Amino acid sequence: MSLRSLGVELHCRCIQTESKPIGRHIAKVELIPANSHCEDTEIIATLKKTGQEVCLDPEAPWVKKVIQKIMSNRRR
Amino acid sequence: MSLRSLGVELHCRCIQTESKPIGRHIAKVELIPANSHCEDTEIIATLKKTGQEVCLDPEAPWVKKVIQKIMSNRRR
Repeated sequence: MSLRSLGVELHCRCIQTESKPIGRHIAKVELIPANSHCEDTEIIATLKKTGQEVCLDPEAPWVKKVIQKIMSNRRR
Repeated sequence: MSLRSLGVELHCRCIQTESKPIGRHIAKVELIPANSHCEDTEIIATLKKTGQEVCLDPEAPWVKKVIQKIMSNRRR
């Protein structure tokens, strides 16, 4: 099965990343590991109210905290 | 916009979680924070070859490591 049919694009999806800490507005987060089509990990958050997809910077401290918070299962 | 239209189901999606460490087979990972429809964080991995969706246990040490590895952008 191709990556594309898995919903993984054959190129990087993120052009720019959100700089504001929008953790509380996130309905879900997609993590796409670096692969042969994109050399960087991509993090794409879907926002609660609008459904907008926003790219996040895996290096940003607030993004790391948001992921940790989701993993630790604390309600927001 | 409703959670459902954002691809967030109105109930928990995971019935059981994968116990084997399948990190290297993961094409992407979806993190769904606990919300009013599901009291636990859900982690759904899509596998590279088959496109199969597999639920992972947010508490499992190997799952935490896989997420950390993706975040740190090291190629696998």
